[in-house]
Amino acid sequence: MQRERNKKYNLDALTDGILSGKNQWLSKGITLVESLLTEDRKESSNLMERLLPSSGKSLRIGITGVPGVGKSTFIEAFGSHLTKLGKKLAVLSIDPSSSISKGSILGDKTRMAQLSMDSNAFIRPSPAGSSLGGVATSTRESIILCEAAGYDVIIVETVGVGQSETIVKNMVDFFLLLMLPGSGDELQGIKRGIMEMADGIFINKSDGNMERAKRARKDFQNALHLFPPAASGWTVPVELGSSLEKDGIGEILEICEKFNTQTSESGWFEENRKNQEIKWFHQLIGQRLEADFYSYSITKEKIKKAEEMISSAQTSVRKALDDLFFA
Amino acid sequence: MQRERNKKYNLDALTDGILSGKNQWLSKGITLVESLLTEDRKESSNLMERLLPSSGKSLRIGITGVPGVGKSTFIEAFGSHLTKLGKKLAVLSIDPSSSISKGSILGDKTRMAQLSMDSNAFIRPSPAGSSLGGVATSTRESIILCEAAGYDVIIVETVGVGQSETIVKNMVDFFLLLMLPGSGDELQGIKRGIMEMADGIFINKSDGNMERAKRARKDFQNALHLFPPAASGWTVPVELGSSLEKDGIGEILEICEKFNTQTSESGWFEENRKNQEIKWFHQLIGQRLEADFYSYSITKEKIKKAEEMISSAQTSVRKALDDLFFA
Repeated sequence: MQRERNKKYNLDALTDGILSGKNQWLSKGITLVESLLTEDRKESSNLMERLLPSSGKSLRIGITGVPGVGKSTFIEAFGSHLTKLGKKLAVLSIDPSSSISKGSILGDKTRMAQLSMDSNAFIRPSPAGSSLGGVATSTRESIILCEAAGYDVIIVETVGVGQSETIVKNMVDFFLLLMLPGSGDELQGIKRGIMEMADGIFINKSDGNMERAKRARKDFQNALHLFPPAASGWTVPVELGSSLEKDGIGEILEICEKFNTQTSESGWFEENRKNQEIKWFHQLIGQRLEADFYSYSITKEKIKKAEEMISSAQTSVRKALDDLFFA
Repeated sequence: MQRERNKKYNLDALTDGILSGKNQWLSKGITLVESLLTEDRKESSNLMERLLPSSGKSLRIGITGVPGVGKSTFIEAFGSHLTKLGKKLAVLSIDPSSSISKGSILGDKTRMAQLSMDSNAFIRPSPAGSSLGGVATSTRESIILCEAAGYDVIIVETVGVGQSETIVKNMVDFFLLLMLPGSGDELQGIKRGIMEMADGIFINKSDGNMERAKRARKDFQNALHLFPPAASGWTVPVELGSSLEKDGIGEILEICEKFNTQTSESGWFEENRKNQEIKWFHQLIGQRLEADFYSYSITKEKIKKAEEMISSAQTSVRKALDDLFFA
């Protein structure tokens, strides 16, 4: 994954390599867009411009769930099912914990042993040592690169804790939540609000106590019923299955395809992608403005001081703001 | 509500008037902090600084629910209950629809006829013609003014549609969601995610079909059970009642007080308020930076053009961003 720093990219070769679907070039391209080096920015920008017209044709699926829910096993089973049908699958992960520990916890290739040997599958872990914001940006661009390389389905995988799933929700078409049977203690780890983001729920490991699994499904269905309908007009299905037994995997693909057809026909699919892009653009503008502003060490000092004074009720927020911008 | 533009405020008189709990001075103070005029900014800032040490001692309650759920009737009943106990209540509303129509829909004093005659109650509608962001800022400051004027309970009321309830959630201690009995069609209007913000749910109008009301409570309890515990450590109660019959009103106050005691003892109450202030400070910094940036008409033009190119896949977001900041 380490890029050869001394070798300049040949942009033509890189573009052609990606467009002809060669994984080694795709990897190089992703390394380029992940790069934080100033000298790589212009090249990244040019690469994106060249590949953009060939992008957009995949189904982008976000997958989340707490550690232990069986995400790797699910992606293995789902991915193998896809490649057997002649489809190409790319798996990208947004994993803040792996960024913090400067490397993926288990190693994505070990986690998904079968898929990593599959020539129609491409697995790419989070870049090590990046911020969540950085990962979010590079993952969005990696999706476009994978699409340009001819991948039909892009899975963006995340851990259902922290803020990463909101980020993933905003870059995929279909968001799949993996759950365990039993609606009690097993759910404690999942973030508030995450259930309302789901376009589908898969209750994994439903291969033991089926009564329990069915009760869990009923509970989820009841809870989903309390939510208002999604803007997509889609009704969220709850599917029982077992990744280990490859049970329910084909059904999830059918659900994804039905979603794709239904929302494409209604126009929501394209509309949603456009809105995601525009929203992302404005988020980046905001981030850029704040990054520029906070980058001055004198600003940092002032803000730290202001926070202390606000916390101890020594100043109002309004005054602190005025002092920051006018003093 | 119209402020006399020609008369300069005497800051000493204003401060003293508010601190001595005189509603006409409180109203003037709120009009001042709502003012968007540059010449009023400095004065507002000074007023806030003077009143801040006398603020913070109330319980801040956010109330939301779809139109028709009976918010006004609830606030009337709840407020009268409070004032009968010798407490002083202020009601502030964040109502984007009233801002858009340049005036409150029904007129807050008509909506809450009894409370508006009550000398221990103070009712203040949204400022007409302001943006939601502006309303959010002035409402936060109005809370502080009301506290300085000796109000024990501040209700911030909003309509459970759009983005206003997230704003309210971030400025109150306790967030109460009003619901109707029956968990089906009646809920369709409420925004996704709102149930997970609630610290308490009151099922209003539970005075007809009690079976139906109890079933609704069971449904809500089941759904809440699927959510992970709140950071406050608080378990969200679901209460049945009827504002019209004054049934369940005392119970809601008891719940609020229990919440106050429990979270104060755990330290979460103070911690949450500090976090709200710091978060708000940073939000305002971001808003200010964006407002400055977007205020140039040349920037506006460029952004409009960029959005069009992004939407039609003529440019990547990265390239559009670079063009915006470097071209």
